[in-house]
Amino acid sequence: MFDVFKTYLLDKISLTDEELERIRTVSIIKKLRKKQYLLQEGDVWKYDAFVASGCLRTYSVDEKGNEHIIGFAVENWWTGDRESLLTGQPSRFNVDAVEDSVVILFIHTNFEQLCKDIPAFNNMVNAILQRSFVTAQNRIQAALSYTAEEKYLNFVAKYPGFANRIPQSMIASYLGMTPETLSRVRSATAKK
Amino acid sequence: MFDVFKTYLLDKISLTDEELERIRTVSIIKKLRKKQYLLQEGDVWKYDAFVASGCLRTYSVDEKGNEHIIGFAVENWWTGDRESLLTGQPSRFNVDAVEDSVVILFIHTNFEQLCKDIPAFNNMVNAILQRSFVTAQNRIQAALSYTAEEKYLNFVAKYPGFANRIPQSMIASYLGMTPETLSRVRSATAKK
Repeated sequence: MFDVFKTYLLDKISLTDEELERIRTVSIIKKLRKKQYLLQEGDVWKYDAFVASGCLRTYSVDEKGNEHIIGFAVENWWTGDRESLLTGQPSRFNVDAVEDSVVILFIHTNFEQLCKDIPAFNNMVNAILQRSFVTAQNRIQAALSYTAEEKYLNFVAKYPGFANRIPQSMIASYLGMTPETLSRVRSATAKK
Repeated sequence: MFDVFKTYLLDKISLTDEELERIRTVSIIKKLRKKQYLLQEGDVWKYDAFVASGCLRTYSVDEKGNEHIIGFAVENWWTGDRESLLTGQPSRFNVDAVEDSVVILFIHTNFEQLCKDIPAFNNMVNAILQRSFVTAQNRIQAALSYTAEEKYLNFVAKYPGFANRIPQSMIASYLGMTPETLSRVRSATAKK
């Protein structure tokens, strides 16, 4: 499964065989069955995590027990809780597998060392962080200004394939609407 | 006004006089009167922008002409549109001054050169990006899962002083609620 990550890396940056081997040496392959947790609320997150296959979701649970999905991560995405990683505080989020998944983990101190020692790797990581920030900003804009229909169409356009892969109830949670509203929106947009 | 940025920098990292001078040489001081634009929708954003004084807001305008405030930036914060900066595409956002403000601009190519040449500066920038991402993630969580009252209390707790400084209509827009709802929430929380 490291090969998926290797392909991802070499698509973005140039690395010597030696550098690739260094990265591989500190990688940890973790298989998750559907519904299995990668991170549970209250635990401190200490990894950088690349999704090699499958799909995971990050969510919080409110006082009434309702789940609120902050984000999904499919193959070639990254997941985890950066706030807990940076602060060392227990996470307020859960990350679990929506499908059977394989994740490549790096203990954060090892990951930081790779960033220090391999400038191209560091640049790649920073570019990913910038894109993650942009994605989050866009999501805030969508949450604030889009109608339910616009939210759904924006989601389908940005994440093609997700809508067929992820349970509708989870998509509704991600979009901040009830499953009933999502169902109505899907019917309305399908007719157009 | 560069001194504000110098203080900010030296609070976070160690820099030689020579490095500080290099940073100063490529900095551009820009004064904005209240309501003046730093960035208008449709323009390409090409800077890194540090707020030395005042307050700016980033917002989009929907088809009906309603403004949706994505974020505020007060002194010692950064502003601009990273998506436009990264993609070279016209911005979907406006950034203007909520108060008379002073911004320190860096043309992005100069800023990138500083990052390349001064490792401590680069590390600081990456740490800021990570925090920006965490802040955006938290905002998504708040938007999805918080009640109107929780949104307001969270805002006041995270950004003390903002509530007295920024017009209520803008805070309502930022929180994704009507001014009437915000007014009701403020009354209700004040009584507690």
